[in-house]
Amino acid sequence: MTQTENAPVGRLGDHELPPDFPELPRPLGPVEPAMRRSPGEEARTLVAATNVASLATLTEDGHPWASLVTYGALLDGSPVLLVSRLAEHGRNLARDARASLVVAAEPRGRDPLAKGRVTLTGHVERPENEDVARDVHLKAVPTASAYAPFGDFSLWVLRVEQVRWVGGYGVMDWADAGSYATSEPDPVASAADYAVGHMNDDHPDALLAMAVAFSGHTDATAARCTGADRYGLDLMVSTPRGKAPARVGFAQRVDEGDGLRQATIELTRRARAEA
Amino acid sequence: MTQTENAPVGRLGDHELPPDFPELPRPLGPVEPAMRRSPGEEARTLVAATNVASLATLTEDGHPWASLVTYGALLDGSPVLLVSRLAEHGRNLARDARASLVVAAEPRGRDPLAKGRVTLTGHVERPENEDVARDVHLKAVPTASAYAPFGDFSLWVLRVEQVRWVGGYGVMDWADAGSYATSEPDPVASAADYAVGHMNDDHPDALLAMAVAFSGHTDATAARCTGADRYGLDLMVSTPRGKAPARVGFAQRVDEGDGLRQATIELTRRARAEA
Repeated sequence: MTQTENAPVGRLGDHELPPDFPELPRPLGPVEPAMRRSPGEEARTLVAATNVASLATLTEDGHPWASLVTYGALLDGSPVLLVSRLAEHGRNLARDARASLVVAAEPRGRDPLAKGRVTLTGHVERPENEDVARDVHLKAVPTASAYAPFGDFSLWVLRVEQVRWVGGYGVMDWADAGSYATSEPDPVASAADYAVGHMNDDHPDALLAMAVAFSGHTDATAARCTGADRYGLDLMVSTPRGKAPARVGFAQRVDEGDGLRQATIELTRRARAEA
Repeated sequence: MTQTENAPVGRLGDHELPPDFPELPRPLGPVEPAMRRSPGEEARTLVAATNVASLATLTEDGHPWASLVTYGALLDGSPVLLVSRLAEHGRNLARDARASLVVAAEPRGRDPLAKGRVTLTGHVERPENEDVARDVHLKAVPTASAYAPFGDFSLWVLRVEQVRWVGGYGVMDWADAGSYATSEPDPVASAADYAVGHMNDDHPDALLAMAVAFSGHTDATAARCTGADRYGLDLMVSTPRGKAPARVGFAQRVDEGDGLRQATIELTRRARAEA
């Protein structure tokens, strides 16, 4: 089991709230447990979704150095970099193998920190198999074929030792290196944004039914979908007592990229059957 | 003078090219000198264009740590961060003031490394004036007003000591901290993408006239605009001998955000008068 079972949580975690900060409305009825992606799955999903990241390395005098890089990922999620000795980070890695990579989700909405990102730290090393590493990088970064033959570029594999996932405000967790290596990127990730928009635009009644049936907010008056993944949907539920985040889960994990629609239809049916 | 005077340069700089790498066609006639933004101006322009960056800090055991942050900038370009003690980077900065920030331009086209980015390194310190620093951050990151009052968030100012600008392949330079602090963000930056598209879509003849008159590629058959700034335009010039990058400069620096169109019209007139 790589996933974790979570009741919906307040999205403010351990932040130190001012005394007058409004409390989130609490569920009035039972909350149906809903699965979420594990931190390892969140990390692998973010890493699989793009090919650009920021790298932290160490300069000769031990100062941190931030720079932009492209990457592909091996089957175990280890990022493969192709960097030039002309770049500071290329010289830094050749001198000191300690490195950290942050991969961020595409911004959604106007708040850059409401989106997910993951920090991977570890040591870089030359690839065991240069050809495999080069192919993985070039598949993820097709434009790299223009400079891959240049003599100043080298392949590096980041052996991931620590994984810190941040999902948004107060939503963060560690994944161990083993769980990162064996977790699977979410196959429905690329379909999620469309699904979220479609549910909000065309099926607000279905979302409200889910909120009433499963989130414990039995007085819900509306619900917006804020996220979708292979295990279920994230909702923001409006009640006369204020708005609260909630999680509603599919009966079964979705294993196919095009399975999100069917799972959402089944969840809606189940919600309406409870009404 | 913060700008530098540059003849057009090959965009491959010091890369180690394979022996069979095609040479760029050389100018056949005189090349009109054209101004460019200085590295300090490039850096300030990138920093002014967005509010999201990646931060490199040091963990307790001296390992580099990459993370996502938002920022505003003081009048001298010093980035102002607002970070939580709940985040690793918040604890890192409180323990070790050494930091580095990379700010990247929005991707344009399919090559993530063809765009500009800048690395700023230095030490963070508490702001001299908390109110000014908070206002600067909140103006750049309006959504921060939701968590600015939380007790776990602190303001930090990055005192910039080193500036490394990378404009694309082989185009990179250092700016000293003084030049960074006194340089001005390019006032036409936000209009540049539109201007580039408009010139390519509607005025290919004007671009060709500029290339023939000013770039030394007197056999040019076409030219595409690849960049626009307060000092001039970047072109990719097609000749029967291959394609070559070129720079064509305005007679005067543009000082107003809406001055790009007029400067381009005047450059076109001047090019046609030379024909």
